[in-house]
Amino acid sequence: MHILTIGAGGMLGRKLTERLARDGLAGRPVDTLTLVDIVAPDAPVELANKTDCVAADLSAPGTAARLIALRPDVIFHFAAIVSGEAEADFEKGYRINLDGTRDLFEAIRMAHVLDGYCPRVVFASSIAVVGAPLPYPIPDEFHTTPLTSYGTQKAISELLLADYSRHGFFDGIGIRLPTICIRPGLPNKAASGFFSNILREPLVGKPAVLPVPDTIRHWHTSPRSAVGFMIHAATMDLSVLGARRSLSMPGLSATVGEQIEALRRVASEEAVALIRREPDAAITAMCEGWAPGFTATRARELGFVAEDSFDDIIRAHIEDELGDRA
Amino acid sequence: MHILTIGAGGMLGRKLTERLARDGLAGRPVDTLTLVDIVAPDAPVELANKTDCVAADLSAPGTAARLIALRPDVIFHFAAIVSGEAEADFEKGYRINLDGTRDLFEAIRMAHVLDGYCPRVVFASSIAVVGAPLPYPIPDEFHTTPLTSYGTQKAISELLLADYSRHGFFDGIGIRLPTICIRPGLPNKAASGFFSNILREPLVGKPAVLPVPDTIRHWHTSPRSAVGFMIHAATMDLSVLGARRSLSMPGLSATVGEQIEALRRVASEEAVALIRREPDAAITAMCEGWAPGFTATRARELGFVAEDSFDDIIRAHIEDELGDRA
Repeated sequence: MHILTIGAGGMLGRKLTERLARDGLAGRPVDTLTLVDIVAPDAPVELANKTDCVAADLSAPGTAARLIALRPDVIFHFAAIVSGEAEADFEKGYRINLDGTRDLFEAIRMAHVLDGYCPRVVFASSIAVVGAPLPYPIPDEFHTTPLTSYGTQKAISELLLADYSRHGFFDGIGIRLPTICIRPGLPNKAASGFFSNILREPLVGKPAVLPVPDTIRHWHTSPRSAVGFMIHAATMDLSVLGARRSLSMPGLSATVGEQIEALRRVASEEAVALIRREPDAAITAMCEGWAPGFTATRARELGFVAEDSFDDIIRAHIEDELGDRA
Repeated sequence: MHILTIGAGGMLGRKLTERLARDGLAGRPVDTLTLVDIVAPDAPVELANKTDCVAADLSAPGTAARLIALRPDVIFHFAAIVSGEAEADFEKGYRINLDGTRDLFEAIRMAHVLDGYCPRVVFASSIAVVGAPLPYPIPDEFHTTPLTSYGTQKAISELLLADYSRHGFFDGIGIRLPTICIRPGLPNKAASGFFSNILREPLVGKPAVLPVPDTIRHWHTSPRSAVGFMIHAATMDLSVLGARRSLSMPGLSATVGEQIEALRRVASEEAVALIRREPDAAITAMCEGWAPGFTATRARELGFVAEDSFDDIIRAHIEDELGDRA
């Protein structure tokens, strides 16, 4: 099996690569792995001689066709610039997040017309396809009302994915990822960064800033579950999806206060004491427009699984990132 | 005031032109009218010396920029190839219905960046943005799940319209038109043509074929109401829309049986006798996937008005098309 991951250098791309190297896909070993990102990603040690690491911009002319000429069986498409950058640089956002995706889909369609090629395409979408005012929980049939250019580009890509799949050009599925928590690595400047920061930093004895009230409710899943969604999406029978190809993934709806209580239970009172409250009206206003949670009924019925409690999300982080040392 | 209509040669474009020539827009006379279509549309007699008729393909390089260089105050965008053609010719559908629209929006953005230009844009969308399985009535917040490339292109255009409006590049509104009934002119080959044929033809003593059962329910509005939607959309205050810029228009949900009963009441038993039942399983299956009706709550609250009964729809046709001669 040949697997192509576009945007393989990001956090989820790297974790997916590790998982594929360890477990293969649906019990089948990976014969060839092509990892693409703006900067060439690292090859996993286990598959060093089966991996091709490519530095390329998906939206540059010819890139998509060159990748599809390899006829990968499964394509994971994570490539995107993030929400803040897509909002600030309108043209770049549309070029990378919309035209790049369309170029990829068009390259697959051309190959399909040529020789019947029809790969599995797993597209990383986002809860940013919805925007306030939002009900809680958000039903599967709620309309996409993005409040960012990033969310708009993801919502448009979902529509293209569905139409190309309906025409039989490829077998596609869109995975609407919750906010990933606990995001490993260093604190970043994303407005949503605090959801992870207030857990990740205290777990290793460092302070963290909380800019919003404890009552803010949001929708989370662990990196481990997110990778699990991608693997399941790549291997499940998609004929059950019909024409509705994008699914809101399961996750955990929790308030910041509930996150902190979980930290108290799983770690300690001392860890909680490292959270410093510095209210920020702008960040709070932004958060109030974000998705508080989804029913994710359809995805759950189709076998997508996420954590049931924030205690489990914190434990997954400790196991996967801290070598059980917290 | 300068008004630009793209796709002005179609049935609705022509009726809108007649209405603008007769009534102006919001009590203001039309100073300049630019009418664009693949074949140059006719100028209305009343505005003959104020009208520029242009033959142009919106998706051809430079067309959009050339039209926007005129800095129209209000832009009506109807241009599209129809559902059947967009489904059969995938590339042409995306080129005309998606790229043409995006070219227009981009040309406006460029002008906005240059000199702050910010026109009103009224985009003709369609109930084809939704697809079965559908509830009845369909709420305003139901997701867009098109089952055709045409519907996909309209849904994508709605997302672009919302994002460009949110950024302040123009002041846009998307009008999701019901099926237009009674469509004037000759019977056409669209699968939905019978909804109009079974009324329009018997009203002038001609036979018509009904390919579906009387129980089929669908969502209709008259050409007169559709033009009214466009006029209202061009003149209302759009700040109340927030980020949700496309509205399902009001209409009349009726079964074919109810259409026929209205024909019996407004015309005669003899007219009804001209309808010949020739069941067609393929057309029936298609119809069962179409929208049975919308709540259209938001549009109604914002002052969009349609007929309350099929009797009124038939009477509007008699007044507007038959000079009261039925």
